[in-house]
Amino acid sequence: MSSIAPLTLADMESAARASMDAATWAYLAGGAGTERGIAGNLQALDNVWLQPRALQGGASASTECSILGTQLSLPVLLAPTSPQRLFHPEAELATARAALESGSISIVSTDTHFCFADIAEHAPQRCWFQLYAYSSRREVDASLDMAAEAGATALVLTVDASFSARRLSTRRAGFHVPPDIAFGTLRSLGIGDGSVPANGRMERLALSWQDLERLRRRWKGPLLLKGVLDPNDAQRGVDSGADGLIISNHGGRQLDAVVPSLWALRRIVAHIGRNRPLLLDGGIRSGTDIIKALAMGAHAICIGRPYLWGLALDGKAGVQTVLSLLHEELQDAMMQMGMACLEDIGPDCLVDPSGLGALPKSWRPRHE
Amino acid sequence: MSSIAPLTLADMESAARASMDAATWAYLAGGAGTERGIAGNLQALDNVWLQPRALQGGASASTECSILGTQLSLPVLLAPTSPQRLFHPEAELATARAALESGSISIVSTDTHFCFADIAEHAPQRCWFQLYAYSSRREVDASLDMAAEAGATALVLTVDASFSARRLSTRRAGFHVPPDIAFGTLRSLGIGDGSVPANGRMERLALSWQDLERLRRRWKGPLLLKGVLDPNDAQRGVDSGADGLIISNHGGRQLDAVVPSLWALRRIVAHIGRNRPLLLDGGIRSGTDIIKALAMGAHAICIGRPYLWGLALDGKAGVQTVLSLLHEELQDAMMQMGMACLEDIGPDCLVDPSGLGALPKSWRPRHE
Amino acid sequence: MSSIAPLTLADMESAARASMDAATWAYLAGGAGTERGIAGNLQALDNVWLQPRALQGGASASTECSILGTQLSLPVLLAPTSPQRLFHPEAELATARAALESGSISIVSTDTHFCFADIAEHAPQRCWFQLYAYSSRREVDASLDMAAEAGATALVLTVDASFSARRLSTRRAGFHVPPDIAFGTLRSLGIGDGSVPANGRMERLALSWQDLERLRRRWKGPLLLKGVLDPNDAQRGVDSGADGLIISNHGGRQLDAVVPSLWALRRIVAHIGRNRPLLLDGGIRSGTDIIKALAMGAHAICIGRPYLWGLALDGKAGVQTVLSLLHEELQDAMMQMGMACLEDIGPDCLVDPSGLGALPKSWRPRHE
Amino acid sequence: MSSIAPLTLADMESAARASMDAATWAYLAGGAGTERGIAGNLQALDNVWLQPRALQGGASASTECSILGTQLSLPVLLAPTSPQRLFHPEAELATARAALESGSISIVSTDTHFCFADIAEHAPQRCWFQLYAYSSRREVDASLDMAAEAGATALVLTVDASFSARRLSTRRAGFHVPPDIAFGTLRSLGIGDGSVPANGRMERLALSWQDLERLRRRWKGPLLLKGVLDPNDAQRGVDSGADGLIISNHGGRQLDAVVPSLWALRRIVAHIGRNRPLLLDGGIRSGTDIIKALAMGAHAICIGRPYLWGLALDGKAGVQTVLSLLHEELQDAMMQMGMACLEDIGPDCLVDPSGLGALPKSWRPRHE
Repeated sequence: MSSIAPLTLADMESAARASMDAATWAYLAGGAGTERGIAGNLQALDNVWLQPRALQGGASASTECSILGTQLSLPVLLAPTSPQRLFHPEAELATARAALESGSISIVSTDTHFCFADIAEHAPQRCWFQLYAYSSRREVDASLDMAAEAGATALVLTVDASFSARRLSTRRAGFHVPPDIAFGTLRSLGIGDGSVPANGRMERLALSWQDLERLRRRWKGPLLLKGVLDPNDAQRGVDSGADGLIISNHGGRQLDAVVPSLWALRRIVAHIGRNRPLLLDGGIRSGTDIIKALAMGAHAICIGRPYLWGLALDGKAGVQTVLSLLHEELQDAMMQMGMACLEDIGPDCLVDPSGLGALPKSWRPRHE
Repeated sequence: MSSIAPLTLADMESAARASMDAATWAYLAGGAGTERGIAGNLQALDNVWLQPRALQGGASASTECSILGTQLSLPVLLAPTSPQRLFHPEAELATARAALESGSISIVSTDTHFCFADIAEHAPQRCWFQLYAYSSRREVDASLDMAAEAGATALVLTVDASFSARRLSTRRAGFHVPPDIAFGTLRSLGIGDGSVPANGRMERLALSWQDLERLRRRWKGPLLLKGVLDPNDAQRGVDSGADGLIISNHGGRQLDAVVPSLWALRRIVAHIGRNRPLLLDGGIRSGTDIIKALAMGAHAICIGRPYLWGLALDGKAGVQTVLSLLHEELQDAMMQMGMACLEDIGPDCLVDPSGLGALPKSWRPRHE
Repeated sequence: MSSIAPLTLADMESAARASMDAATWAYLAGGAGTERGIAGNLQALDNVWLQPRALQGGASASTECSILGTQLSLPVLLAPTSPQRLFHPEAELATARAALESGSISIVSTDTHFCFADIAEHAPQRCWFQLYAYSSRREVDASLDMAAEAGATALVLTVDASFSARRLSTRRAGFHVPPDIAFGTLRSLGIGDGSVPANGRMERLALSWQDLERLRRRWKGPLLLKGVLDPNDAQRGVDSGADGLIISNHGGRQLDAVVPSLWALRRIVAHIGRNRPLLLDGGIRSGTDIIKALAMGAHAICIGRPYLWGLALDGKAGVQTVLSLLHEELQDAMMQMGMACLEDIGPDCLVDPSGLGALPKSWRPRHE
Repeated sequence: MSSIAPLTLADMESAARASMDAATWAYLAGGAGTERGIAGNLQALDNVWLQPRALQGGASASTECSILGTQLSLPVLLAPTSPQRLFHPEAELATARAALESGSISIVSTDTHFCFADIAEHAPQRCWFQLYAYSSRREVDASLDMAAEAGATALVLTVDASFSARRLSTRRAGFHVPPDIAFGTLRSLGIGDGSVPANGRMERLALSWQDLERLRRRWKGPLLLKGVLDPNDAQRGVDSGADGLIISNHGGRQLDAVVPSLWALRRIVAHIGRNRPLLLDGGIRSGTDIIKALAMGAHAICIGRPYLWGLALDGKAGVQTVLSLLHEELQDAMMQMGMACLEDIGPDCLVDPSGLGALPKSWRPRHE
């Protein structure tokens, strides 16, 4: 890491880019097609504005929250990513440990280099298991059992990445997964031979709502859907027993011109309310972004690329630096805005230029 | 063609540009006046966003459709262009053959180098005849008879290009049609002497709604109007017996600052519904663009410049590469969005930033 | 003039710029303050789109119209500008002659180099007299009498330039009116000594609505107000006996951040209708711009800077080239749009991106 | 100062930038985080347009107004800034003197280099005291007594800067307050030791609405809140006895992505009306900006950075140059718009592009 301490996540991005070869960077930074989905996430956040409250007293702000029974020191989870071994030899182990020590949660991909059991051991009660369905229903069931036994505190079913995406910048850069990277969790389940196929990905099953219902019956703990963007899907997911939703467009990595996840969040909150945890994933790069997402109705957010920048730069400590910067920025912004705790953040904190008025109040924060 | 396989139509555009002289490129790429019409088509498509559905199951997506009785492997037709001989010696023959082999349709201009009968022979049941009215009513009638006899499966009456346009970039580049290019179809009809006039174009007749009615009575097969942008014109066209409409602004080649065809489509669908085939033409450059057009109400789209890039690069095979890329992109986007077939695509697939809501439901897709 | 014939007004602008010194160009091109008013005029026109009609038949389009009893070959008048001697020795004489020969009207400033009587002689029935009020009521009255006697067919009272403007780019360029330029009309009236003051401008009187009423009583011919932007002012002007209005922001030369005149036109048409001639002035640079203005409700438009480009390049012939280009572009655009005459142009010709619908129909064109 | 007289505040900005080291400039120009708050203030002003009235007669415009009993020669106050000693050895003394001589008011920060009593002596009846709360309630009370005794004509309670901000560009530039700068006012009150801490700032108290009520009871003169952005806060402030509000986002220096103060003003005026003086602070750079703010409902505006540019360039005279330029620009714009006095400026002077109509009339200017 540079000798000058990073002041923002963008600083870490620059340093991380400089630290790795162009092909690996292309894989990390790239997305589907022309990458309008990536740009859209960032622009959607840029186009809302914060409105502080005056004279709220108090000389501190608490960023703590609880998501599905787990206490977090800030409303930030680590989105499932893979293969983290590209960026640091300790890969998911370092990430899990960082989550534990920083009071976050690591959502661990099915496609890890290390096996889930080992990862989960590094962060007791702070690992969620993210499920990709490979091979057959039997192996999927075995995955759930393995995850439960290893102590996963929640199951995250990704619904937006059953099919390989057209990641053009990655292809153009000639990226290939190096041979020393394995699929540790899959190997532990006897799925495939544990090595990464030439194209970097194994075939996945295309899941249906019926599959969700079956998984719901089998998995006893909290279950979340990741990749929901449509309000009707959000409702159906909740009706099917999902305990929470991760509003995500996969960071613009699956579908070009995909709707920004912030807009999807807004429409979903208006449609189904906020009775279950809603997590926003996509484009969050600062503490003020977190406030925007929470004010729009999210209970917490996920970061993906940013913590990989930290991982690449300094392993566990780098991931913690990312979380620590976000914590510092979030706390600062809350204090500037007169918010003592996350429950104070609501639609009144945002001003939407389109209407030059406050956003529609699809929900009410604590104070009202 | 470059040794690296193209990943997008934009790759083919760059390669095609590099493969020809500046004046020919100016003719191919240019448009009317300041070319705001060209830019508008692209920007209108860029300003809508896709919203995928979750958990739709299924491991494939069919891009097949039927337009006026012809089965297509993807909802893409080849718009009438001329003179294709500028780009490849096999000109319209190659294009027709590519349409046949790729399961598309070639809409063959009146202004072809080869004569329509020869072209149609290369793609039985897959050539439509596009009519420009030259000379007099008698010659027009003869054109229809010729086209019918040659096996044209539909007649496309272009209504937006009766008058020469002010194509400034083309003029500035000093473009002239080379002397070895002929008007084969016109020659076969005895219109003019078959050679291309100095200004590259013969005088056309300005058609009226009465002409349409006469043509409608004479032409027994399906008849479409190309170049309709106004909702009232769309209604009148259908009332006058048009079996379908091609919503087109001639790729921005006729009128500067012309309304983007995507916006015109939206207003036309709202006004006349979707009982007849509506084809969108203008600015489509990717599979996600196709989905946007279909979600906005089109049954299929036409491409013009893109297939000429392929033709210039590799004749028939190049045109097929363009269709194949679009097919691949469309199928990928459909799978990412949870759409098993084109009928699944509807207004709910789009999010419009202006209202941050779904587009008005001017029509309902299959599922509802 | 360049050996290559200009294809657009922008071509003439470039050539004119190259033909004169930087300070004179700064005076010609510049405006008030940061020149947002200049940019606004252009952007407002750029943000509306044209919607053609299909199958209107007819092989020609007439651009003729009649404004206050004068037949024009195209709906374009030459706005009052001064001092034209900066650009060509024949100055206003050349402009007047060009107006006559091209079937336009020259609105002749009070601040001309040649005296109005001489100018009017060059273009019988085609000169309007634009009034700036200098000195006192007596001299103003004398101006009217002089203009009437010289054959001015209308009086244009400018209401937006009683005070010197902050033209920063002009000041920075060190522009000064050369000593060989005189105020011929003022001299003929005995106002001042006929020489141009050091700051290039004499003190004007600030006029009131009472002044207008007095002028209205004294001037027997048609009277127009130039520089009206507010709908209430437009109404009051008409109520006070104005026969027409020139909706103008003085080309952005008087007030920075002034509302684009196209927007003002739209609001004025909505407020007072179109019973009297409404002329739009500001930012018109092409035939499609003219259609936009007419579709928004104007009966004709004025150009200022563009004809001075022509004047600088080639005197009378240069002004005619500008009018001829606009005529050619307008006729072309009308034919492309299926408009046989100016009365066919109405609100339906425009699409407004903000609402993705047609503009509100504040008025009806001939066909409805 | 440059030998060429500045024509705009932007000229002074350039000259000031060139006159100081990069770190000091970073402190002066910089803001919080990515500095979107700074850009937002400027863009919000840029996105409204001015609409002049015609034929209002009168050959002059008065920019005079009265704010809380003090007569001003133009509706511009000097916002509290510190430490002014960075820019000129005479610091706040020069600023106060400039305010006095130019008919403005200097709002003097708690964090001055010179002590308030000395500053106030330089501008009798033209200094307001801006309060930051340090140390304890006792010291705050002592501050008020000191300010009252020294002749402060109003108290300004800043409510948006209790906590240090993340000023990244300032940090990156390595800015530190030089050791020869003191906290004269604080020293005079026995708060701290009068030296500036290493981080350039002492810890402040976080104030509450109860604190406001207590201050309100203790301070007998007019009291304003500075930093209000929320309409409900504005109402509560007035209900709590505030005599006026300064709508400010601290020039984008405290919170990134903070709502532009112009938008906040608009919403506050709509919510609480204009019965008490409303001052806009943030982004004002010209006379037309002042008109925009007043038309949006402000009674006057504050400038911060601009007068520091003047101070840095030429001490008292430089500050006066800034005020003089604004006066000149404001008067010019009023005359161009037909406004004889500030009371003539109202919502009808603005055109809002979003609705292409006049802004909602949340209030009425004098004439109606």
